[in-house]
Amino acid sequence: MKIAQVSPLWESVPPKMYGGTERVVSYITEELVRQGHDVTLFASGDSLTKAKLEAPCNQALRLNTGIFSREAPLISMVEQVFSVADQFDVIHSHLDFLAFSLARRSPVPVVTTLHGRLDLPELAPVFREFSELPLVSISNSQRSPLPWCNWLATVYHGLPSDLYSAHPEPGQYLAFLGRIAPEKCPDHAIELAKRVGIPLRIAAKVDQADRAYFERVVEPLLDHPLIEFVGEVTDVQKNDFIGNALAMVCPYDWPEPFGLVLIEALACGTPVLGYRRGSIPEIIEHGMTGLISENLDEMTKHVEGISLIDRRRCRQVFEERFTVEQMVRNYVQAYQQILSGPQVFPGKRNTIAEGMSAEWL
Amino acid sequence: MKIAQVSPLWESVPPKMYGGTERVVSYITEELVRQGHDVTLFASGDSLTKAKLEAPCNQALRLNTGIFSREAPLISMVEQVFSVADQFDVIHSHLDFLAFSLARRSPVPVVTTLHGRLDLPELAPVFREFSELPLVSISNSQRSPLPWCNWLATVYHGLPSDLYSAHPEPGQYLAFLGRIAPEKCPDHAIELAKRVGIPLRIAAKVDQADRAYFERVVEPLLDHPLIEFVGEVTDVQKNDFIGNALAMVCPYDWPEPFGLVLIEALACGTPVLGYRRGSIPEIIEHGMTGLISENLDEMTKHVEGISLIDRRRCRQVFEERFTVEQMVRNYVQAYQQILSGPQVFPGKRNTIAEGMSAEWL
Repeated sequence: MKIAQVSPLWESVPPKMYGGTERVVSYITEELVRQGHDVTLFASGDSLTKAKLEAPCNQALRLNTGIFSREAPLISMVEQVFSVADQFDVIHSHLDFLAFSLARRSPVPVVTTLHGRLDLPELAPVFREFSELPLVSISNSQRSPLPWCNWLATVYHGLPSDLYSAHPEPGQYLAFLGRIAPEKCPDHAIELAKRVGIPLRIAAKVDQADRAYFERVVEPLLDHPLIEFVGEVTDVQKNDFIGNALAMVCPYDWPEPFGLVLIEALACGTPVLGYRRGSIPEIIEHGMTGLISENLDEMTKHVEGISLIDRRRCRQVFEERFTVEQMVRNYVQAYQQILSGPQVFPGKRNTIAEGMSAEWL
Repeated sequence: MKIAQVSPLWESVPPKMYGGTERVVSYITEELVRQGHDVTLFASGDSLTKAKLEAPCNQALRLNTGIFSREAPLISMVEQVFSVADQFDVIHSHLDFLAFSLARRSPVPVVTTLHGRLDLPELAPVFREFSELPLVSISNSQRSPLPWCNWLATVYHGLPSDLYSAHPEPGQYLAFLGRIAPEKCPDHAIELAKRVGIPLRIAAKVDQADRAYFERVVEPLLDHPLIEFVGEVTDVQKNDFIGNALAMVCPYDWPEPFGLVLIEALACGTPVLGYRRGSIPEIIEHGMTGLISENLDEMTKHVEGISLIDRRRCRQVFEERFTVEQMVRNYVQAYQQILSGPQVFPGKRNTIAEGMSAEWL
């Protein structure tokens, strides 16, 4: 299949530092190439891929600190993608709604994966306007604010099988991993550790936008013998940081659309303590790969049960549901479904008229 | 003529508070209606107009503090505009490059007025991609980073003739009016006043984004008998605030694309002390309506010459060059030029194919 993957330009593909979307775009792209598909990746020029790379800008926007207008390079890129749309069988956009106008007018089907939360009220009108466009959700929960969209599939994110390894023996500490942000509730993780008397190790970055929150709320809680703030960790360090933990603590208090940390934990064989929010109860099966709570009190009660979770089963569930192979199998199925199905592409008429366009120019 | 005016949604049209672009869109729209044109204004629902109002959202985005995604309502609006494009003779966009993809595919000509600075390096690729689209600059200086664009005209902003009145007698103070921001150099205005021993009155708002700059740089300079910080002023208050000043001080150190304050000063009969940056030497004629300097030292020397400027001539130049009538005359001329000229509209083919489209759907 001839496939275009269209990435945001904020980070390179794969990202040099953080960047969940660009990381997933990289996994999809490389696995499609490995399976023999003809893939063109639209992404920043500092990306690394075995696909053909089309780069509308040399450098990822986040690292280019002089950038004031983020939209300008994205709009150039979208135009470039659709100016060669007929060279592809399918275009897979990771740009939220930004390419919707041209997707509607495209001569080939466009599949859009939504990577963010969809419960913001200002999003509903643009999705309603383009409600015929086929979308992929990254969890069923993510869809709930916009149930009337043309949902093609839910495709869970996947990780390479060999990125992390199974750690069958439980460790002696709780782990918190990710961005320090109010909605991630690192303060709940700290309070939990203090209540149950088990050490907590926090591996996290603090974005500029969250610095004030970190200094005001989190930092004052760190000065305690049970709490260790280890800063940012690499993928290599993550394997043991996660794998040697008793449990991954995910007390997120927002509609988490997916949560890569959850499947990183499972890949290491580490069960998850999470709140019943967003995608978490879809990804973590209560009693099987973790324990789901409504709030901190319930999570506190659940800690002692976590050692009853079979860590080999966690890794097994990862291998069954959350590998890159599984994710890409699901995407290829979605592409095939849209290519063979009764979907309407209003833009299709452009193809029919193509023979005439030379005269009109 | 059937004309669509497409406004940003950040402020209502006209804006309830600040918002240069939305204010100019309002002046253009109401004057076109007064001249008998059939005008549709695409703007937030809290706008006030004699044109037909098409509102993709009820409230201006800036006042809707819950808004997280600014692009979503804009992309809906652009789609709505172009879905009825054939109802207009011309579409006039004030959305920078945001509507370029659909402008290129539009069955009717789209004129885009650029309201911001164009010297940011990340802007060049998107303008190069769409270099055939006809653009209006708000000063000749604004064009200089992108000379190869399809510049249709420079149309200077205008104000209603009766918004401010001539003040033939010079006042005893210098005035500074506008946003407090580093590039506007309020600190230079303060230093100027202290050097020449003439009072300075500062009428300005402090945006949240500029609060740190205000507190760090400007506030410490305000505690001086010559300096008075009067805060925000209404249009009614502006008339005497500006008109009773000896001069308007505009020590802006950035490529000012237009500068409404400059023509507000002229409308009141008040000459301008400005730096040779961006549009300023185009709008202010040195020795006629103000005095242009390279830097603070030169501006300091110029202060004593400012009383030689004929204040009646300032008002007269305003009436000749910077009224709403003059601005709209220039815009109508630009619309006519594009409708009658040899411009190529790639989207025009859609019209030719229109009779067939019903079959293709």
